[in-house]
Parts: sequence; structure tokens; C-alpha cells
Amino acid sequence: NKYTIAVVPGDGIGTEVMDATISVLNELDIEFNYIYAEAGDACLEKTGSALPQETLDIVRDADACLFGAAGETAADVIVKLRQEMKMFANLRPVKAYPNTNSLSEDIDFMIVRENTEGLYIADKEEFTDDGATAKRVITREAEERIIDYAFQYAKDNNKSKVTGVHKANVLKKSDGLFKEIFYEVGERYPDIEKEDFYVDATAMYLITQPESFEVIVTTNLFGDILSDEGAGLVGGLGLIPSANIGNYGALFEPVHGSAPDIAGKGIANPIAMMLSAVMMLRYLGESESAQKLDNAILKLLTEAKVLTGDLGGNATTNDVANEIIKLLR
Amino acid sequence: NKYTIAVVPGDGIGTEVMDATISVLNELDIEFNYIYAEAGDACLEKTGSALPQETLDIVRDADACLFGAAGETAADVIVKLRQEMKMFANLRPVKAYPNTNSLSEDIDFMIVRENTEGLYIADKEEFTDDGATAKRVITREAEERIIDYAFQYAKDNNKSKVTGVHKANVLKKSDGLFKEIFYEVGERYPDIEKEDFYVDATAMYLITQPESFEVIVTTNLFGDILSDEGAGLVGGLGLIPSANIGNYGALFEPVHGSAPDIAGKGIANPIAMMLSAVMMLRYLGESESAQKLDNAILKLLTEAKVLTGDLGGNATTNDVANEIIKLLR
Ligand SMILES: CC(C)[C@H](C(=O)O)[C@@H](O)C(=O)O
Ligand SMILES: CC(C)[C@H](C(=O)O)[C@@H](O)C(=O)O
Repeated sequence: NKYTIAVVPGDGIGTEVMDATISVLNELDIEFNYIYAEAGDACLEKTGSALPQETLDIVRDADACLFGAAGETAADVIVKLRQEMKMFANLRPVKAYPNTNSLSEDIDFMIVRENTEGLYIADKEEFTDDGATAKRVITREAEERIIDYAFQYAKDNNKSKVTGVHKANVLKKSDGLFKEIFYEVGERYPDIEKEDFYVDATAMYLITQPESFEVIVTTNLFGDILSDEGAGLVGGLGLIPSANIGNYGALFEPVHGSAPDIAGKGIANPIAMMLSAVMMLRYLGESESAQKLDNAILKLLTEAKVLTGDLGGNATTNDVANEIIKLLR
Repeated sequence: NKYTIAVVPGDGIGTEVMDATISVLNELDIEFNYIYAEAGDACLEKTGSALPQETLDIVRDADACLFGAAGETAADVIVKLRQEMKMFANLRPVKAYPNTNSLSEDIDFMIVRENTEGLYIADKEEFTDDGATAKRVITREAEERIIDYAFQYAKDNNKSKVTGVHKANVLKKSDGLFKEIFYEVGERYPDIEKEDFYVDATAMYLITQPESFEVIVTTNLFGDILSDEGAGLVGGLGLIPSANIGNYGALFEPVHGSAPDIAGKGIANPIAMMLSAVMMLRYLGESESAQKLDNAILKLLTEAKVLTGDLGGNATTNDVANEIIKLLR
């Protein structure tokens, strides 16, 4: 099999963790045709656009996209990519790995975040006489699609429960609709348990009973907030990958950003990027290679000999890549 | 001194924790004139309104209001009370007490939540052809007022830093404005350190570095989410009080709700309600009594002999009230 992969390293540590990940992917028995494309702050400076049309085209034509990180322009780059490519599902696994600062060893849930609407519609924001307003858009179509995706994900992955998260007590119409659709769609999945919580309560339960969650489905901004909270639960953003999936393409990126404070030092943790590559391999149907890489990462974390600073070690980004390559051989 | 206090026990455990708190207040050397008023689910059933005009009038005429909890009607009752009474500041202290399930012993920060706008404006929500929309309203006036309140609070309470929380990378106009006002107002407080974070990053930092926060100021819904997360950090909602403060009145309530699962059993933890009473005493200028009650609560938690189930004990609500009374004498 041969896949065309759009590679968008972006800014800051994006390029560093991308290099490390590509070197690891090259150890697998899969032929990848990498097409590099630019986006982000440096690209804006150089080309006048943070997300040139050429990059969009490359991403559109590829089988999948690996994305590193963007700096100040992150919102313009990644939100636009998600929306232009209609990548409606944002999957963010929160999982406790060994030898990390996790609140509990038994944390293992998936956040399925709606990726196209909610408060993320830039042209619905406007200045007013006395300030500014933004519009939070909830459509039956997009919410039904994401909720169904979450239930299907649960079914395919032997999860027994899906939790719908909203604020229907205050947002009675919009989140009332979300809640209604949640249970409507849930009926198509009779074997899966359903529960729904308010987003504020969920923010508490994630800390007091993180083990109780399996699959969380929620709207765009709530998913954004809860997934970073999830990162906090398992010791930080260094280990949280994500997948943006649609019918016309898919993009895989670490949840962390460009981390200007440590950029250029070669010490960034590449594991979130590598785990994003694992998600890409699964998406491409290469489950065997995905499992192999996943196992190598788990082994590295279990051995805890080659860890970057955020995990309490002093290995470099390259050290981690080399160790993963050793474990793969 | 004699104060008129509007007492709104509400639903579920609201009445239980209120009784306990009133019995404790009666031990202090202050003359209170309690005027009871109804609100909530039971009130809706009985009177046809979850928040009758009479209750609003009683709250308006009182020196302060103690509020227990409302059930399903919580949003209609409490959001309306906050807005009708123009109680623009919602103060939610997050503090680690001894013998609780806190992530760290050094957690002690105040969330100052804007209480009148954001996504909490019911008449700005509407159904559309394909779903529903809500409007998030950010006005210069309200945000400047809450930000100034937060800085003033920091100054008055010897805090050295205020953190502004927003999502200005996505909500460029509305939260861009919030961020701008944050630093504008901050200039009036040269001795206080300022920092600002995105709400998602904050949700992570609350777990990974909770000790670093002193005062957080943010918009309505972000404050709602982060304060429940804060509750999770210090072992749950049983110990989180709150104050709703405006120029025409103030209302003090535990952050927890009516807890139908344990209502009527006499086992609810009354401490969040009692700590709300401490905030009320401070508001009324009765700092000595406030300190006395606060000390008694701290002593009870330190001794850890009379604790309710949520804190790992098996004391009843009344046991806790009686022990506090003993400690006050
Ligand atoms: C950079 C930002 C626009 C983005 C978001 O809010 O979605 C980020 O926080 C994320 O979670 O991917
Ligand atoms: C009951 C609900 C409307 C309320 C809110 O969202 O403000 C509650 O969650 C709170 O935090 O006081």
C-alpha cells in the first residue's frame, strides 16, 4: 500500500515533533509519499497567508494529513482547515499511561467533539454599540452526525456507555435540542448505556470520577475545554493526540500547541504527535502497524528510561524517536 | 446591629442545609430578622411560579439573601434572581481544607465570575430552520465592571496576581474585547501582576498547577465551568460557597444543587451553606463573627471527627450543626 500524506509541521515545536514522527513512520513497512506544506505564523510572514490555498489543496488531495502546531495564527489555520475540509469529528483520547502524573491509572476515555459549529463560526461574531456578540450555532444535522459518530465509535470499540455533555438548563433551546437528539440517536444503539450531564458538573466529575467515563460527546467549545482538562488529568498535553475526521479527509494533530517557550531546543515531547500518527494508521486501515507503533510507545513509557522533561526525564526529542525506532525493530 | 435576611431554602437538601446554617447563625451575637420566601420546584408546583414576585420583593428589601438550592427550575430561579437584582459579581472561592480529597494542600484561589451576560441571556436564544442559536453578549460596561471588581478584590485581600480567562483566539471580537479591557483595567492596579490564559489551557492548568492561581476573572459560562472544576480540585461541591453581589443586594448560596439523590435523609453536608453565611457576614461588615464561624468550620474539618458522608464520615447534617455550635461556644 502506498499513501499520500500531507505533512504540515507548522510553527515552533511542530517541526521538531513532526521530524521525530516521520522518522518513526519510516520504520514501518508502509510506503508513504509525504507532501510537505506550509501553514502558521512563519508561513504568514513569508507568504502573506497563514493557510495558503496551496496547502489546502495538498491536504484535500492527500489520503491523510499530519499537522504539527501553529503559533499565534493557530485559530486561523486549524479552525479553517477543519471547516474547509468538513472534518466534523474531533476525537481526543484521554488515557493514563504508566509513569506519568495521572490522577488515576484507570483513566481511559474518548472525547468526541463537534468540529464545525458552536461558537467557532468567525463570521457570526460582530461588534455592537456597547461591545460585541458571538453566535452559538447548533444545527440538528451537525449535532446528529457527531452524536451518531460517538455512538458508532462506542459500538466499534466495545465501549458500554456514551455521555452527552451540554448546558441545557441555561441554553434551553440550543442545548435542549442537543440533549433531545442525544437520546433520539441513542435509541439506535440499544446496547449502549446513555447518560447526560451539564458541562459544569462534567468538569467536576472528570476530576472526582474520571474512571467512570468511556465516550463523551459534546459541542465544539465544551469539547475544547474538557479535552484540555482531560490532558491535565493524565499529566499534561505531552501525550494527547487527536484526529479530525470527515467524509473528504482527515487530519491528525497533537492537542498541544507550538510551545514557543521550548521551541528550537530539541526537547519537546514527540509522543502526542506519534500517537496522532497511530490514529492516522488506524484511519488508513493499517491496524497492524498502528498497534506496533502504539505498543512501542507504551513500552517506552513503561520502561521510563527515555523520557522528555515534561515527563520528568531529560531525553531529547531525538532520543525518544531513536528509542521508539529501536523498540520497533 | 440588626439585619433583615431573606431566607430562601428552596428544594431538596436546600432546606436541610439552610436549617443547619440558621441554627449556627443564631449562636452569633447578631440580631437577624429572617424573612422566609419560596422559590424552586416545589414553589412552582404550589404557586405556578418558580420565582414569585413576592420572593423577588423580599430579596430586594432585605439586607442580604441566603439561598439554599433549587431543583429542575434552578436556572429559572437563580439566573433570574441574579439578573433582576443586578448582582453582577459571582464570587466562588476554591480552597483546600484539611482532611478533604484535595489535589494539593496549597489550593486557595477566588473565581470572580461575570454574572449578568455572556450566554446567560435567555431571550437571545432562538430556534432556526435547521436548529437553534444562542447569542453570547459581551458588553464593555459589564466586563469592565467585573474585571475592576476582581482587581479591587485582589488589592483588598492582599493577592498579588489576577488571571484573566477568555477564548480570544477564537472569539476574536468579543473575547478580544475582554482581553483588551482586562489589561486596560489592570493598569489602574500597578502593584498587581496580570496574566491571561485561554479557557482551555486554564482548565488544564487548574489541575497541573492549581497553586499558581490567586484570583481568576472570567465571563459567565467559563466561570460556571471552571468553578465546578475547582470544586473537583478540592474534593467536591460540599465545601464551595458563593456570593452574588451587586449594588442593590447580595445573595449567598452554596455552589451545589438540590441533590435529589440524598435529599430528605438529613445527611447533606451543610458546610458550603455555612461558608456562604460566612461570606454574607463579611459582606454585612460583621468580620469578627465571620472569622469566628470560619474558624469553627476550619476546626471541625481539622479535627475530622464530625464529617458527613461526602467527606468520608458518617455524621448527619444536624451533627455537623451541633458540633459547630459547640465549637462556637
Ligand atoms: C488553537 C485553537 C483554535 C484550538 C481550538 O480551540 O480548537 C485548540 O485549542 C484545540 O483544541 O485544537
Ligand atoms: C443552575 C445553573 C443555572 C447555575 C449556573 O449555570 O450558573 C449553576 O450551575 C451555578 O453554577 O450556579
